[in-house]
Amino acid sequence: MLVYGRNVALEYLNNPKDIKRIYLQSGFSDEKIISLIEKNKMNVITKTKNELDELAKGVHQGIILDVHEYVYKNLDDIINKSDESFIVILDHIEDPHNLGAIIRTCEAAGVDGIIIPKDRSSEVNATVLRTSAGAIKNCDIVQVVNLNQVIKELKDNGYWIYGTAMETDTSFRDVDYKGKVAIIIGNEGHGMSRLVKESSDFIVRIPMYGKVNSLNASVSAGIMIYEVLRQKNR
Amino acid sequence: MLVYGRNVALEYLNNPKDIKRIYLQSGFSDEKIISLIEKNKMNVITKTKNELDELAKGVHQGIILDVHEYVYKNLDDIINKSDESFIVILDHIEDPHNLGAIIRTCEAAGVDGIIIPKDRSSEVNATVLRTSAGAIKNCDIVQVVNLNQVIKELKDNGYWIYGTAMETDTSFRDVDYKGKVAIIIGNEGHGMSRLVKESSDFIVRIPMYGKVNSLNASVSAGIMIYEVLRQKNR
Repeated sequence: MLVYGRNVALEYLNNPKDIKRIYLQSGFSDEKIISLIEKNKMNVITKTKNELDELAKGVHQGIILDVHEYVYKNLDDIINKSDESFIVILDHIEDPHNLGAIIRTCEAAGVDGIIIPKDRSSEVNATVLRTSAGAIKNCDIVQVVNLNQVIKELKDNGYWIYGTAMETDTSFRDVDYKGKVAIIIGNEGHGMSRLVKESSDFIVRIPMYGKVNSLNASVSAGIMIYEVLRQKNR
Repeated sequence: MLVYGRNVALEYLNNPKDIKRIYLQSGFSDEKIISLIEKNKMNVITKTKNELDELAKGVHQGIILDVHEYVYKNLDDIINKSDESFIVILDHIEDPHNLGAIIRTCEAAGVDGIIIPKDRSSEVNATVLRTSAGAIKNCDIVQVVNLNQVIKELKDNGYWIYGTAMETDTSFRDVDYKGKVAIIIGNEGHGMSRLVKESSDFIVRIPMYGKVNSLNASVSAGIMIYEVLRQKNR
């Protein structure tokens, strides 16, 4: 899988075992990146700007890395990390830019892990990696076949499940996120699936005061996540 | 200016004076949109899917509108609307997707208006319109030549100015947003400009707990905006 851009490259170079190959534009001069490449004694393949443009599908800033595919974690890797464990479940987020931005937010917020479904969901691809600005390297993502099964397992482990939807009067600030919690962010167009909604212990909404009243999924996730942190006194 | 997609079309059709021309894909069957077109007695130009693909630069969902350019508002239109007035200043947001997502958030949050600079900033273009999902129709945007001059004018009108940056220990939750406030969201890569930072009454940060610790600009804006609303008891 090809990833590119300086932020992503820096994250990989700080922990270079996932890098298979490095392509640099001739004349590439980012000192921080070059010193990391030298420190790790890595070989580089020099290419012209045109050749890199051909390889990358976006703005590469002079560096492209060929890296191993993302290896998803297991549920056991992310649950029960503490009595204030905090997990984010994405109920079929389809836009890789949204998934990337949510991964960034989860990394910054110190969330224990992200759960995504296998079907009808953006996977962790190169766009996600780029949008996550390298955050994915420090964020555990679990891919599951059946979200409802996992929600049941979380409940059995003492987690409270908070779904988000428009059709409720309960503000996201009026519930208690202390203890082990998992919040669910729904699909960009359709929101949460019916079964997932029914499995939730609480359904909350972000209050809105306009006419259109539609928040971007990654913005909703950010607002929800930081409310949970506020209540957890972080 | 061409805009497209059903959400954007619906917003325009609810207030159709800005529509110059409507292009529909032959066989277009969205009943809500068709009934609004009929109610407003508007002419449509029917085209094939290929012709619409040529016209649009993205996913048009069978409808493209040719609309008047966005008309920016004046500062006087958005300030002093109440004792709890709330304005968002964007200090050189360059990515139109971020600008669109921030407009959506501001509309949903009932923010009084958005101020953007004329230079080195995304303008309100077709990408912004699409990303804003039509929210721009209910959101007042002011474009100014000199952000610092406007910040001074806001201060003269009794506003408190809150900048956001990483280099501070003050959490965004530890300041008081009561009264007339303006918050500033900085550029995606460089943050706030030096002069704008110096003009701020407070500099606050969103606490982060990861290693990469970079939030998407529209996510940061959403988190900040909803904290202001929380303190204003909305």
